[in-house]
Amino acid sequence: MCTFTVGDYLLTRLQEIGIKHLFGVPGDYNLQFLDCVIDHPEISWVGCANELNAAYAADGYARCKGAGALLTTFGVGELSAINGIAGSYAEYLPVIHIVGAPATSAQLQGDCVHHSLGDGDFRHFIRMAAEVSAATAQLTADNATAEIDRVIEHALQARRPGYLSLAVDVAAIEVQPPVQPLNPHQSSSPDARRAFREAAERLLAPAERVSLLADFLALRWQQQSALAALREQSAIPCASLLMGKGVLDEQQPGYVGTYAGEASAGQVCGQIEQVDVAVCVGVRFTDTITAGFTQQFAPERLIDLQPFSASVGREHFAPLSMADALSELQPLFEHYGQQWQPAIAPSAVQPAEPAAMISQQAFWQAMQKFLQPGDLILAEQGTAAFGAAALRLPSQAQLVVQPLWGSIGYTLPAAFGAQTADPDRRVILIIGDGSAQLTIQELGSMLRDEQRLTLFLLNNEGYTVERAIHGATQRYNDIAQWNWTALPHALSLQGQAQSWRISETVQLDEVMARLSAPQWLSLVEVVMQKEDLPPLLRKVTACLNQRNGG
Amino acid sequence: MCTFTVGDYLLTRLQEIGIKHLFGVPGDYNLQFLDCVIDHPEISWVGCANELNAAYAADGYARCKGAGALLTTFGVGELSAINGIAGSYAEYLPVIHIVGAPATSAQLQGDCVHHSLGDGDFRHFIRMAAEVSAATAQLTADNATAEIDRVIEHALQARRPGYLSLAVDVAAIEVQPPVQPLNPHQSSSPDARRAFREAAERLLAPAERVSLLADFLALRWQQQSALAALREQSAIPCASLLMGKGVLDEQQPGYVGTYAGEASAGQVCGQIEQVDVAVCVGVRFTDTITAGFTQQFAPERLIDLQPFSASVGREHFAPLSMADALSELQPLFEHYGQQWQPAIAPSAVQPAEPAAMISQQAFWQAMQKFLQPGDLILAEQGTAAFGAAALRLPSQAQLVVQPLWGSIGYTLPAAFGAQTADPDRRVILIIGDGSAQLTIQELGSMLRDEQRLTLFLLNNEGYTVERAIHGATQRYNDIAQWNWTALPHALSLQGQAQSWRISETVQLDEVMARLSAPQWLSLVEVVMQKEDLPPLLRKVTACLNQRNGG
Repeated sequence: MCTFTVGDYLLTRLQEIGIKHLFGVPGDYNLQFLDCVIDHPEISWVGCANELNAAYAADGYARCKGAGALLTTFGVGELSAINGIAGSYAEYLPVIHIVGAPATSAQLQGDCVHHSLGDGDFRHFIRMAAEVSAATAQLTADNATAEIDRVIEHALQARRPGYLSLAVDVAAIEVQPPVQPLNPHQSSSPDARRAFREAAERLLAPAERVSLLADFLALRWQQQSALAALREQSAIPCASLLMGKGVLDEQQPGYVGTYAGEASAGQVCGQIEQVDVAVCVGVRFTDTITAGFTQQFAPERLIDLQPFSASVGREHFAPLSMADALSELQPLFEHYGQQWQPAIAPSAVQPAEPAAMISQQAFWQAMQKFLQPGDLILAEQGTAAFGAAALRLPSQAQLVVQPLWGSIGYTLPAAFGAQTADPDRRVILIIGDGSAQLTIQELGSMLRDEQRLTLFLLNNEGYTVERAIHGATQRYNDIAQWNWTALPHALSLQGQAQSWRISETVQLDEVMARLSAPQWLSLVEVVMQKEDLPPLLRKVTACLNQRNGG
Repeated sequence: MCTFTVGDYLLTRLQEIGIKHLFGVPGDYNLQFLDCVIDHPEISWVGCANELNAAYAADGYARCKGAGALLTTFGVGELSAINGIAGSYAEYLPVIHIVGAPATSAQLQGDCVHHSLGDGDFRHFIRMAAEVSAATAQLTADNATAEIDRVIEHALQARRPGYLSLAVDVAAIEVQPPVQPLNPHQSSSPDARRAFREAAERLLAPAERVSLLADFLALRWQQQSALAALREQSAIPCASLLMGKGVLDEQQPGYVGTYAGEASAGQVCGQIEQVDVAVCVGVRFTDTITAGFTQQFAPERLIDLQPFSASVGREHFAPLSMADALSELQPLFEHYGQQWQPAIAPSAVQPAEPAAMISQQAFWQAMQKFLQPGDLILAEQGTAAFGAAALRLPSQAQLVVQPLWGSIGYTLPAAFGAQTADPDRRVILIIGDGSAQLTIQELGSMLRDEQRLTLFLLNNEGYTVERAIHGATQRYNDIAQWNWTALPHALSLQGQAQSWRISETVQLDEVMARLSAPQWLSLVEVVMQKEDLPPLLRKVTACLNQRNGG
């Protein structure tokens, strides 16, 4: 390119933070910025079938690469995407949302242009975005480069979305390339750090039984290695919640299972709660994954590490990063060496009859055997995520779930985004029919891009998780019945795919045997009973119905 | 039911305003209210494949029935729908959006429950809704019935969305049924009314040439009959803009065509603008439908009727309803009797070669012949809507377009909603491939409900309207290629459908001959040239590219 524009500046910053793909949908207010994207040597455009799907894809991408980016058009596009952005906000994913906006002159004059509300107010949507963003900016000729830097830095620091409104004329303004790198790093106060270590030492010194509970914020702040180092020091019982499952290597000594408060399987709950000191790293207790806040930790025996602060008993220390707090804990963990009950994986319980209908139990047993180290598994909120909670993940496997925001349909485009981020990884999507209907069109994008994902479509004729909560036989939990196996053919002219519809356990084993390294996109429709639930979900839904008043 | 609850009260009010169908997606915070819906003798639940589609369906329904209703769940569901609600706001459709919310106690305690942002603030989403709603309310035990009435009345008065947050426990509270009917009526000031009549009389008395331009707000305020009466008084030249096309009977004397500023066909522009007095009824000049604000009306020779006020020259009169202002104009229109040039319909220009590829011109000629009185036609923003602008609609035909909000994908679910509102009407959907991908899953709902819509899927391999604006050969205007004719089979197990893929003009005539009263849902994939455009759109897109800076 001859000149270096605001659009180029923005792309330079995205590349700097590790983004190689921009998801979105074109619109006439972003087409000229898209010309910059197409010309960019390192960032690829990934067109999606709609904006919500694109937002989910960018979120899935960010879960693999640390950050994601999304491009939409003013009003219609950005609002279609905003539920996906809200999910990234709730679950701490830095997705940079760039919105192509009408020309500055049209905005200043309050013109009645398309994609506006027609009332001359062009700030409705940035106000809406501010509710679900770490930072927002309306870029102008005067502020563009500074505001791009500010919004991206804040988004990375907070691990939450950043919103940039980019008017068509502003995108084309000539600017200087960035000189200084971005500085998204957070620092701890030396005093807070020292005081934290002393308090932790006082609490831990007399302790004999210590447990470790890690959750999704430890994943978002990339503390997997630090946690692994802590566990190497001392084989204490440890667990994660469903939301952060995978943050701990589940094949290493000490792993006792997925913690879910009173709904935890076997002896998981006791081993984590009934100790002298419990260390929580990046934990948020959310209703669905604690069976309605049934966790029981005595505050005075708790060390709690959060992204920007930590507490020991009732003392609070800030600013203190999770990384710094973890490195202070490291030397204190040398002397523990406890016994623990290893996690029970689904394959350890009694095997199912081969010719029987595929039960939830049989499905998850088969899935346990199917998994390989390094797999990326996406499990949709509903029977899939709560079934996956009982898996014992292979080393280096990653699980993507969305239990706090819980937007059904999320995982299908998220899988598209994750596979885009990591094209050589085996990506496995497990999703119910009720959820897949919301976002099915992104199957077409997977096929266009020749992705080789494996989709397990759990067909239980509707919203099984909602039947379990309320209205088991009510018509509102039914959905339109689709020919799932016909969809890959319908949603692609060229893409190659294979699909199966199976209902017996023996078929599941046969199909899975063929999918260890699939050459094409593979869709397996697994016909299941409407009422069948993974055991964890049965406990959780009873609690949710009760909290909703029966 | 034994007791009468807040949920029942709300349904009673919806029924009172003519709503017989509630669109939406179930979620665990709205399931108990859904029990009330299922039990209701007059209101039917219409489950949709996702919430954005449900919002579009409710909007399409409201365009037929005067009001629509939508049910979603907290956070995830309502935000997925919010682009559809914003469209209803921009284009003046009263859609009542009911959002099932977490229990009051959980909200008061700030619990970290699913579908919240996890920060204890449960008002993020009502604040976002307020940007695109006439009125919002968080229903409580104390205010529920009064707030339901207030929000519905405001929504009907403003013809814009109303938002009701309905916590699971509040829905179940016992209340008294309503005693008084709702009062959504607006009144005019007698003084404003009198002053308006006098001013209009002064302006009109010496005038010889008068024109009438009516637009969508006259449709929303149901002034079709009053406009017809005005035209019976005096056969003046009249036109509508694309957005309100259908508000005037295009078969009656005086109709000159669709007004589009400088981009108007033939002599439309001169006949409407070059007069002594132009009367505008419910008109908003929007960029796309005026080729970038090229309308030229001298303010001192304009009578402008808006929903709540009117102006004559530079004098403004309020509060004054459109209906009252129109009835004041009625006696003043007796003495006009002008000549006019009748509208040129697409079939009047030269016919296409039968074996030729289907051009835009040939398609719209065939469509003109295909239309019947009473048809409901939905034309997607893009080539479809701008092609439809040139049609001469049969009597009683209705056209649904969305040129101000312009959210692509809108018309497919809107057609589902419209056919639900009016099951015996012939509904024709004209949509491009780029747009249909956004919302395709609602085809499954059409088939589930055995709707007999006719869909013309204009396959021009991507976003043709955007190619015309910018980036004609850029990859970002391509989309994933689908097997469109395979979709009805893939998206339904039981539903009956017929589909064709055609590329020659003669095939179009053959297929249309079989669709005069279709027995099943019919999908016609019409293969067209990427670059071909209806003439109006060619003028409009050149202007939009220029406004966006080239």
